[in-house]
Order: sequence, then C-alpha cells, then structure tokens
Amino acid sequence: MSNQIREFQHYRERMNARILELDNRVIKRIFSVDSLAYSGDGQLDRPVRELLGLVASLVLRCDDCVRYHLAEAMTAGSSREEIVEAMSIGLVVGGTIVIPHLRRAVEFLDQLETGADTDTDIDTE
Amino acid sequence: MSNQIREFQHYRERMNARILELDNRVIKRIFSVDSLAYSGDGQLDRPVRELLGLVASLVLRCDDCVRYHLAEAMTAGSSREEIVEAMSIGLVVGGTIVIPHLRRAVEFLDQLETGADTDTDIDTE
Amino acid sequence: MSNQIREFQHYRERMNARILELDNRVIKRIFSVDSLAYSGDGQLDRPVRELLGLVASLVLRCDDCVRYHLAEAMTAGSSREEIVEAMSIGLVVGGTIVIPHLRRAVEFLDQLETGADTDTDIDTE
Amino acid sequence: MSNQIREFQHYRERMNARILELDNRVIKRIFSVDSLAYSGDGQLDRPVRELLGLVASLVLRCDDCVRYHLAEAMTAGSSREEIVEAMSIGLVVGGTIVIPHLRRAVEFLDQLETGADTDTDIDTE
Amino acid sequence: MSNQIREFQHYRERMNARILELDNRVIKRIFSVDSLAYSGDGQLDRPVRELLGLVASLVLRCDDCVRYHLAEAMTAGSSREEIVEAMSIGLVVGGTIVIPHLRRAVEFLDQLETGADTDTDIDTE
Amino acid sequence: MSNQIREFQHYRERMNARILELDNRVIKRIFSVDSLAYSGDGQLDRPVRELLGLVASLVLRCDDCVRYHLAEAMTAGSSREEIVEAMSIGLVVGGTIVIPHLRRAVEFLDQLETGADTDTDIDTE
Repeated sequence: MSNQIREFQHYRERMNARILELDNRVIKRIFSVDSLAYSGDGQLDRPVRELLGLVASLVLRCDDCVRYHLAEAMTAGSSREEIVEAMSIGLVVGGTIVIPHLRRAVEFLDQLETGADTDTDIDTE
Repeated sequence: MSNQIREFQHYRERMNARILELDNRVIKRIFSVDSLAYSGDGQLDRPVRELLGLVASLVLRCDDCVRYHLAEAMTAGSSREEIVEAMSIGLVVGGTIVIPHLRRAVEFLDQLETGADTDTDIDTE
Repeated sequence: MSNQIREFQHYRERMNARILELDNRVIKRIFSVDSLAYSGDGQLDRPVRELLGLVASLVLRCDDCVRYHLAEAMTAGSSREEIVEAMSIGLVVGGTIVIPHLRRAVEFLDQLETGADTDTDIDTE
Repeated sequence: MSNQIREFQHYRERMNARILELDNRVIKRIFSVDSLAYSGDGQLDRPVRELLGLVASLVLRCDDCVRYHLAEAMTAGSSREEIVEAMSIGLVVGGTIVIPHLRRAVEFLDQLETGADTDTDIDTE
Repeated sequence: MSNQIREFQHYRERMNARILELDNRVIKRIFSVDSLAYSGDGQLDRPVRELLGLVASLVLRCDDCVRYHLAEAMTAGSSREEIVEAMSIGLVVGGTIVIPHLRRAVEFLDQLETGADTDTDIDTE
Repeated sequence: MSNQIREFQHYRERMNARILELDNRVIKRIFSVDSLAYSGDGQLDRPVRELLGLVASLVLRCDDCVRYHLAEAMTAGSSREEIVEAMSIGLVVGGTIVIPHLRRAVEFLDQLETGADTDTDIDTE
C-alpha cells in the first residue's frame, strides 16, 4: 500500500473517530445512513452503488470522496475499465472543471493497483 | 404520455435543434460526446450508465437533466426500485438540499409510469 | 394565506408523502434526520437553527428550501429584520448569483407576512 | 419586446426596488458594487465585462443572471456570434449539466433579437 | 497557537494585504462589505452571525472559509457544542460530500482549543 | 520559473498524458474540445477567451483551472490589470467564498510575473 493511500486512510479513520466522539446525534445518524446507502440490502449490486457514489463525488469535485469510492469500487470488484468509464460520464456531465480532480483520481487509482498486493481494505468512510 | 412529459420533450427537442442551428463547433462536439457517453460501446451496460447520469444530475440539482435520465433509464430497462435506490444515493451524497429535486423527480417518474402505454421514447437529449 | 404559499405547501406535503410511500430506508432516514436537526434538543435555539438552514439554502440557491426555512423561521419567532440580516450574510458569502433567489425569497416573505392572519404552520418539510 | 422579456424585466425591477426598501446596508452595498463591476471605469471594455458576467452566470447555472447578461451584452454591442462563442466556453467548462440552461438562454436570445425594434434597455439588475 | 493555525493566519494576512495592494475598487469594496456583514451593527448578535458564515462556508465546502469562521465564532464566544451543532445542520443540508470538510474543520477546532492559551485573535479575513 | 509553477505544470502534463493513455474515447474527446474552445478560430480573440475560462474557473472555485488560465491569459497577452479586473467580476458574482481562491490566484500570478524571464509556455491543459 502506497504512503499516499495509507496517509489518506489513517487521517480519515482518525478524524472520523474524533467526529463520532463529539457525540452529536445528527452527525452520527448521517454517518450511519451513509453506511446503509452503500452496504445495506438493495436492488443494485455493491459495485454499481460504489460507482454511483464515485460519479456523484466526481461531479461535486470532492477529492477525498472520490478516493474513498475508488478504493471501495475496487474492493467491490469493479474493473479499472468500468471505473474509468464511470468517471468519463462524470467528466461529460461536470465539464472540464472536473479535469484536475480526474488527474488526482487517476493517480490514486494507479496507486491502488500498484499496492494491491498489500492491505487495501477500508472499513470506515 | 402525460402533458408534462410531452411538453418537456417537445421543448427540449425544439431548442436542441435550435442550438445546433447556431453551428458552433464546440457546442456541437459537446452534444456529440454526450451521446457517445451513454450510447457508445462500453464496459458498463446502458441502464448503469443512465443511472450514473441520473445521480450526477441529481446531486448537481438539474431538474431537466434528472427528467431526461429518468426517461432514459426506464427505456433502458431499469426498474422503478433501482431508479429510486440510485436516487437515494444521490440524496445521501447531496444532502437535504436535494429533496425539492427529488420531489419533482418522483412526480415525473410517476407520470412516466402512468403514461407507459403510450410513446415515451426520447431520442435526443 | 396567499395562493403561492398554499400551493407551495400542498405540493411539498403531497410529494413528501409520495416519497415516503416509496419505502426506501435510506430516503426515510434522511427525512428523519432532517427533522431532528431543526427540532430536536440542542444547544442553539430553534430560530437560530432555522436561520442556519435558511442561509445554507440561500447560498446553495434552492428556492424551495429557502421558502421552507423562511416560513419556519417566522413560525419560530424570528423577526423580519433578523431574517433579512441572515439573508444579507448569505448574499455576501454567495455573491450576486444569489440575487435572483433573494428576489423570490423577499416576495415569499412579503406573502408570509400579508397572510399571517391565516394558517401558516407547516409541519413537514 | 416579447412578453417573456417584459415580464422578466418588470419582476426584476419591482423586486429589486422592494429589496432596496428593506434598507439593509450590506445588501445595498452588494447591489452597488455589482453596478460598479460592469459599468465603472476599467481595463476591459463593457462588452467583454458583460461576457465575463454571462459565462460566470452560465457555469453557475443561474437562468435569470444569464438572461440579464444576455440583454446587457447585446446592449453593449456584442454580436450574436460572440455571445454564442462565450457560452460555448461556459458549456465546455461546466459540462452537459449546462445544456438545459443553454436552451433557455438561446430561447431568450432569440426573443431579444426578434424584439430588438422595441425598447430593450435594462437599467437595473 | 499551533503551527497550522499560525500558518493559516499568516498566509491569509499576507495575501489579503497583497490583494488590497492591487488597488482594484471592486475587490476592495467586496472586502469592505465582508467586514461590515459580520462586525457592523445589526439585529443578530455576533456569534450567530459567525455561525451563519460558518454554515454557509461549510455547505459551499470552502475549508479556509470554514477555518476563518471557526476562529471568529470562538472569539465571539460560541461554545464548542454550539459550533458543532451549527456544523451538523450544514452536514444535513449539504450531505455526505461535506464529511471531508467536517474532518478538517474538527481538526482545526481541536487545534484552536488546544492553543487557546496563546494569541488566537484574527483581525482580517 | 518558480518551483510552484514548475511543479504545477509537470504534474498536470504527467497526469494528462496518463489520462490519455487510458484510451477512453469520451475522455479523449472532452480533452480535444477543451483545446478547440480556446485555440480554434472564433469570434472572440484569444485573450478574451482565456479570461472567460479564468472567470468560469474562479466562480467554480477550481484552483488548478484558475492557475492554468492565468498562465494562458498572460501568454496570450492579457495585462496584469485586465486579469485582475476579470477576477474582480468573478469575485462579485461568486461572493466572498471566492476570496481564498483569489489569494492563491494572486500568489500564482505574482510568481508568473517574477519568473517571466524563463520558460512559461504551457501547451497542454
């Protein structure tokens, strides 16, 4: 696992834990429904749901959210080609303003693949 | 086909034709790549691509884009339950600001289903 | 109560009911946490929370959300002057792109006040 | 002048006057700096500044702001072709989510031209 | 005062000074009305206005703006619990796309509190 | 050429090349139409088109896009004063949420000018 991936995950896990410690009911429920949306029973299979989260994150131009869903989509079994195609739809819908985020997304995707022989599971957003 | 759907489609078709008459190369190419993104060969099947376009449109809160992809997703074979689940992910990612758009989306979806015995195909965005 | 207010409320109530009928767990939980955020126990009093929702809605430029929080803020006891001042902060943060939404907000606010002798309570978003 | 243009202008003027009556210093200063940005002395000529306002409005997807700057750009002397080219840049930057707004913009532009033999000056935003 | 806070403040002050040196009237007036919005006389007290600026910044997902208003809200006397509750409303309105910004906000808030025994006043945006 | 400019350009060029290697037709066409929008024949001259791209990028708050168009506008012959005036329109339209991006834009603009004795041409976005 590359350093960038590791740092990203550690920061996210550490700060998510810190946020939940704040013990705000509204925040905790949003975190809970976030898990439910992607992992609960449903009509759409897991990889499709992750790609939906990925494209939503890309057009809203949130790098950390994109990184999270890239990792989750790969874990759920999406191929690189499927992920790239999903991102191409985000690029068309969102326009060239998305390009800098696509650059960072592809860099992260390359790192996820290179480091695939090590631990890449991510269990909290 | 309900009047709202018919008006939506006619306006879109009429103005898209008008836009292409402007004969601006950049605009024409964007329209062309838009078609390619959803209809060309690809890794993801057509319904999934339409759901990706739907969720991107929903989180960016574009009612007309949502309506277009709702119609296209149904034509491509997505079930009502799959469409609703895709929109639920858009709602989680985009927050309660999405709710008014979800109301209009569900109203349009109901009309699409009620009018399903008539012509609902839509061939230009 | 003016016709515009009445139509706004009826449409919202009718479609919110329709959305909840879809029986999607994720959507229902988002609606539930939305209520909790503004009405549950908390550190900030109800008018302040409504003004926070109002300004968030204004800078995100969601007319229906703005209308909802205008009505809620008045019901919670905010004065016209406080509401206008909150919106002035939204205008500064969000820029002149907010102006058309401010026009519709002020029109709705005027109608809320004119129709204040009739029923203006709104109990679902 | 077409009815749509007339209604747009009258509503804007009426509500802008209403907003200024609220006598909020912050709001009034924002309105004042808005005028200054497009009409004051500067390095860029008036048509270019209006096209900048137009493209900013288009990528932020504010129909009323787009309509205002379309009228202002024409009054300032921009040709139809220049206006369309400016909007094509907005479409590329902002993506296909801009298309519904482009449809409404082109419809309004057509009406501005058709009604050009009558009064089209607009003196307050 | 932590290094992150100090660097943030120094960069902001240095570049704000640099921007004002550009001597553009429009830019200077926007900076001026920004101060007026939060510090001038008004109906809402200072902490509420800072929380309004904070939530607007959070839903628009501007980390630097969030940091600025976190510091200002604390200086104005808002408690940690009030600040967190205000941010929870931003999270509900803005959705899970806000979470990465909430992580950075909470990290900064923790640093503001830890370094509270030293100078934390910030007098220009 | 300053290190920040050099790093920005190298990263962009390296990752753009990497993206094109993905060989996705939709992505490649978007990159192609992006070049066409700014460099092809047209009604508006090159500096104006770059300023339009700059303001669109600024109100959409994309730092990398702003940096790219700052460099392009300078290369195309826009003066510092014209660039600043264009950005002032973006600030008015987009509001104070744009200020942190304006800080980074002005810092980059200063570096572009300081390093103007060395190679600053940038030939791919």
